[in-house]
Amino acid sequence: MGTGRLEAFSDGVLAIIITIMVLELKVPHGKALGSLKPVYPILVSYILSFINIGIYWNNHHHLMLSVEQVNGKVMWANMHLLFWLSLIPFSSAWMGENDFPLWPVVVYGIILAMSGVAYFLLVRALIHLHGNDSILAKAVGNDKKGKWSVVFYIAGVALAFLHPWVGFIMYVLVAALWFIPDKRIEKKIEQVEEEKE
Amino acid sequence: MGTGRLEAFSDGVLAIIITIMVLELKVPHGKALGSLKPVYPILVSYILSFINIGIYWNNHHHLMLSVEQVNGKVMWANMHLLFWLSLIPFSSAWMGENDFPLWPVVVYGIILAMSGVAYFLLVRALIHLHGNDSILAKAVGNDKKGKWSVVFYIAGVALAFLHPWVGFIMYVLVAALWFIPDKRIEKKIEQVEEEKE
Amino acid sequence: MGTGRLEAFSDGVLAIIITIMVLELKVPHGKALGSLKPVYPILVSYILSFINIGIYWNNHHHLMLSVEQVNGKVMWANMHLLFWLSLIPFSSAWMGENDFPLWPVVVYGIILAMSGVAYFLLVRALIHLHGNDSILAKAVGNDKKGKWSVVFYIAGVALAFLHPWVGFIMYVLVAALWFIPDKRIEKKIEQVEEEKE
Amino acid sequence: MGTGRLEAFSDGVLAIIITIMVLELKVPHGKALGSLKPVYPILVSYILSFINIGIYWNNHHHLMLSVEQVNGKVMWANMHLLFWLSLIPFSSAWMGENDFPLWPVVVYGIILAMSGVAYFLLVRALIHLHGNDSILAKAVGNDKKGKWSVVFYIAGVALAFLHPWVGFIMYVLVAALWFIPDKRIEKKIEQVEEEKE
Repeated sequence: MGTGRLEAFSDGVLAIIITIMVLELKVPHGKALGSLKPVYPILVSYILSFINIGIYWNNHHHLMLSVEQVNGKVMWANMHLLFWLSLIPFSSAWMGENDFPLWPVVVYGIILAMSGVAYFLLVRALIHLHGNDSILAKAVGNDKKGKWSVVFYIAGVALAFLHPWVGFIMYVLVAALWFIPDKRIEKKIEQVEEEKE
Repeated sequence: MGTGRLEAFSDGVLAIIITIMVLELKVPHGKALGSLKPVYPILVSYILSFINIGIYWNNHHHLMLSVEQVNGKVMWANMHLLFWLSLIPFSSAWMGENDFPLWPVVVYGIILAMSGVAYFLLVRALIHLHGNDSILAKAVGNDKKGKWSVVFYIAGVALAFLHPWVGFIMYVLVAALWFIPDKRIEKKIEQVEEEKE
Repeated sequence: MGTGRLEAFSDGVLAIIITIMVLELKVPHGKALGSLKPVYPILVSYILSFINIGIYWNNHHHLMLSVEQVNGKVMWANMHLLFWLSLIPFSSAWMGENDFPLWPVVVYGIILAMSGVAYFLLVRALIHLHGNDSILAKAVGNDKKGKWSVVFYIAGVALAFLHPWVGFIMYVLVAALWFIPDKRIEKKIEQVEEEKE
Repeated sequence: MGTGRLEAFSDGVLAIIITIMVLELKVPHGKALGSLKPVYPILVSYILSFINIGIYWNNHHHLMLSVEQVNGKVMWANMHLLFWLSLIPFSSAWMGENDFPLWPVVVYGIILAMSGVAYFLLVRALIHLHGNDSILAKAVGNDKKGKWSVVFYIAGVALAFLHPWVGFIMYVLVAALWFIPDKRIEKKIEQVEEEKE
């Protein structure tokens, strides 16, 4: 089974998730510039979530480039990832509409952490299918970056109890960490192709 | 006529159905953890519907792998399936927002049963086009699993009158039954390819 | 310029149009079967609109099978068609929510008529690009069916002033007329391919 | 890395943006023709935004035709463009619902200007990847049209303070300027292919 339709479906779901978030930016009733005021925190929240979904799309794209096939297990691992990502618009809006209070920030962090775990499981399912000698397995190694980002999210959730903004800043830091697409895979593919020549 | 665009369109519709369901998770007005309380039953309902749409996507994917072409009849059989699936977000939300009372559970079950029937008709239309000697026909056989799941859904609808949760549990059981993608087709394709060699 | 991305974009827009219509089926507040009552006319309206969008997708699919390239003019003709089709959810909901009164039925008919005109213009733009000797030009001929359906829609709009349901029935008749995908193109492609052999 | 999935994802996002705007056309409660009255300015706003997204899709399509690969930088430049375009439905609705008052018109213009800048940056990122001798670099040249449209948008924003409609007309003028897809790239590709022969 090729990766084509799994990519197409994931692209579709990610494109919709990233776009329906904009529906949370409720059109203000007034027409003065000031009536935009309640929109600002939702916009901040939207920008972080937009970047997070963007990161997942980028990494998913890189991930799928390095594999050749999928099976039923991979399909459900992928569906599981999409499930957690699909909860981002909801928790993002809850966080933004209330000016980043404790519990929405905590829930947002938990969903990001679970997305990280789900991505990790997807990578494992793909490595299990392609073997430990596959390009993917070599490129990812023991996936320190993936593990650390889950740790950071959990730390962010914990620190949010100190002050919600501290938690939020932790989530921003993880996003910054991933902003650059997964060079490891890109490098490994190049390397393998050079070795072939 | 190849299957490409029918797959692309179905992927699009299924991706949207699975994602707009999340819009039913209404952002709570309060910011306390307790304000999430009305969201929980909708989330339970969302999870089951997410899995159900996931199952249909998985099976649709496997189904299309085993065929080579489509015709007008197949297109409408596919559209008919998408119609019933498109009603899932509505009935799922109705069920969740009201804490799983009788009628929403009944309507949800009827829509699942009709989706099962529509899938069955799609398989028949594809077998009719490809002949009884096709990979698909051999793989599906007399499609016991498909028929039984419709029977189970109807039983679930009936049992919901005993208690709505009994009906709901029946729907969960059918989902569990289908959770594993349709191995029959995968096996048959492999077998045919081995015979060729 | 190939037809690939124009098909992908159109598939995307049509998939979304057909799916967001379901958002108009507002989840009832009550949990009794009777609380579904205001949903029924919207459902009737939804079914007709679902079939209409399905027809356009089917015909669009057939149309694109018979051509090889697109240009800027075709792209805008296609965008123009998508514009009118994008208004169907709005007018469909207006019609359904009010139990099919005069003006919503009239507006719905006008939008269907304009969609018919836009499809006609798209076909013309494609014939202009591919020449009068192209498969498409021969298959479509003077496109009686397309012209007649626009006439029927206009008649439906006029007859709605007699009684809205008369207009509505006219729209159903045109849908029935198109329910069967455009056999003309399918036949012509087969014929041309037979001649080649 | 090929351009396939970036195109698919962008097509998806653009298709959703163009379609969810129609959700802003709120279904009127009344059934008289007059109850459509508050919909008209939103429709005007929708038409301009539909055309603008259509222009970006057309140009994006042409742009991607002229390149062969993408990298991480291009992906984020593309995501940045999609971010600004994703704000169009929000500002378009705000403008339409209030009958084109000053601030919504100003915000709409700023979002269009930023989209123009983002498109410019995407082109630069692609030229940087493909080199100054690439088809794209030669076709775009110093991109006068792109630069001028940003200047026009800023002028529109400024002129809106004179009267909002003057600003709005400026935005319409830029759309008219771009209505014809980017012939420069089409010409250059043809020219290069002729030279090859």
